[in-house]
Amino acid sequence: MRETTSQVEAALDGFLALGRRDGEVMRPLRLLEAMRYSALQGGKRLRPFLTLETARALGGADDTALRAAVAIELVHCYSLVHDDLPAMDDDDIRRSRPTTHKAFDEATAILAGDALLTLAFEVMADTPTHPDGAVRSALCLGLARASGVGGMAGGQMLDLEAETAAAPLELAAIARLQAMKTGALLRFSVEAGAIIADAAPARRAALTRYGEALGAAFQIADDLLDAEGNEIVLGKRTGKDIGRNKATLIATLGGTEARATLERLVTQAQAALDDADLGDEGRILSYAARFVASRWS
Amino acid sequence: MRETTSQVEAALDGFLALGRRDGEVMRPLRLLEAMRYSALQGGKRLRPFLTLETARALGGADDTALRAAVAIELVHCYSLVHDDLPAMDDDDIRRSRPTTHKAFDEATAILAGDALLTLAFEVMADTPTHPDGAVRSALCLGLARASGVGGMAGGQMLDLEAETAAAPLELAAIARLQAMKTGALLRFSVEAGAIIADAAPARRAALTRYGEALGAAFQIADDLLDAEGNEIVLGKRTGKDIGRNKATLIATLGGTEARATLERLVTQAQAALDDADLGDEGRILSYAARFVASRWS
Repeated sequence: MRETTSQVEAALDGFLALGRRDGEVMRPLRLLEAMRYSALQGGKRLRPFLTLETARALGGADDTALRAAVAIELVHCYSLVHDDLPAMDDDDIRRSRPTTHKAFDEATAILAGDALLTLAFEVMADTPTHPDGAVRSALCLGLARASGVGGMAGGQMLDLEAETAAAPLELAAIARLQAMKTGALLRFSVEAGAIIADAAPARRAALTRYGEALGAAFQIADDLLDAEGNEIVLGKRTGKDIGRNKATLIATLGGTEARATLERLVTQAQAALDDADLGDEGRILSYAARFVASRWS
Repeated sequence: MRETTSQVEAALDGFLALGRRDGEVMRPLRLLEAMRYSALQGGKRLRPFLTLETARALGGADDTALRAAVAIELVHCYSLVHDDLPAMDDDDIRRSRPTTHKAFDEATAILAGDALLTLAFEVMADTPTHPDGAVRSALCLGLARASGVGGMAGGQMLDLEAETAAAPLELAAIARLQAMKTGALLRFSVEAGAIIADAAPARRAALTRYGEALGAAFQIADDLLDAEGNEIVLGKRTGKDIGRNKATLIATLGGTEARATLERLVTQAQAALDDADLGDEGRILSYAARFVASRWS
């Protein structure tokens, strides 16, 4: 995972390079700096890891998968910038640093998010991502669906609405919210690897189920971290969900039952991976499901 | 132009349809309503008009061009929503109605903009847009370049910076700002038509010059409207540019010289169109250059 992280960091750094090569368009320095601040501040790079490892397990080309992985990470970074805005979750600290609107200003943060989202599609659609244009547009389409009104952006809307809802959401509604807000992009991170490697339909379906279970597990682990984690280790405020009346499975199920659900999801993810029949090549993805779930402990 | 407008309205309405067909993802109602409010409130639909008419003049398929035209318009609509936000231009009224963040709230407006931008790429990348995947990804790439840090978003950043700059911008800097902020997407509206119709390189280059000159003319006309137009006719506040110290060519050149520049740009646009050698088929595009410039009078 550390290896993937440095590959992804280097690629992001290249796409957001300061200065200007011959024939390149002018890119305003302040906006570029805000984009770099938002995209290069570390993190686990879980989504690129999933894309790269899925493609690798299926024999897909690494340089192709890296561009798709970076595009997905750019979407993730944009979502953090916008979610942190005062009108949204109003967060001042992320990864132990001021959030983008605190380090710059609100207008710059909105634009940096917009430009990161747009750059994601620029990276995905460009020819070096894959020799086949149909694959490039399938990747753009999948990324857009995972990120838009029926995916991540829609999930964030439901999340904001839940904060002020009269009654707490039911379990099924919380699961759907989370499947949209964080699940859709995590699932697509896996699917992108399968698209790049041109996996057969049955294998692709199994990998989609793996991505879905892993995404759901990730969110429960994240909520457990918020409820029980340590602020200094995490580099962000904790206990925010309860303070804000956020819809989480922990608030509804309690910690013990949430942990049991988490375990079930890891088992489901690993079973789906067995169905994908990747042999030894699938081991890293199996560990990844375990890793995602164990972050909170 | 009215004919194009109703085609575009109907297509936008379809992409943002309320309710849910079988197998479709869940789309949160409030977010969808804010997207509809932001995208279906009329306007001239100049960008879709340019895409459709360029494709038509070159013999491109109308249904293909309509999807590309709608994708471009979705990007334009998102940019209006975000530009109107309190942290940006802080506008309360657009097209005689409250702006999206006034009609809904700030968080919803930010998300609606994000989701409109994302939907643009979903529409562009999907298979009905063009049978050839390479064309679909070329359209996505061009749209992303026109809209991102080197295009529209970058131009908006320069525009915000100019408001608080110690000295007024020089002519070349204003022209560059405007070429990014409004010019890039207008130029791409023409280029998209040429991509869809698979125009030969020389013809495509001439059409790009046409789009550039038209985009520059559009911005000067828009600034003249703001400086000299009537609020009731326009349906938005006027005189904002001077009040806000916005960088415009009128502030630097004065009205008379700005009008002369506008005339020169229309002539340039029409000359470029002659170079594209479209014969009678190019007449509507030639009128369009004149229309864009005469809006202010």
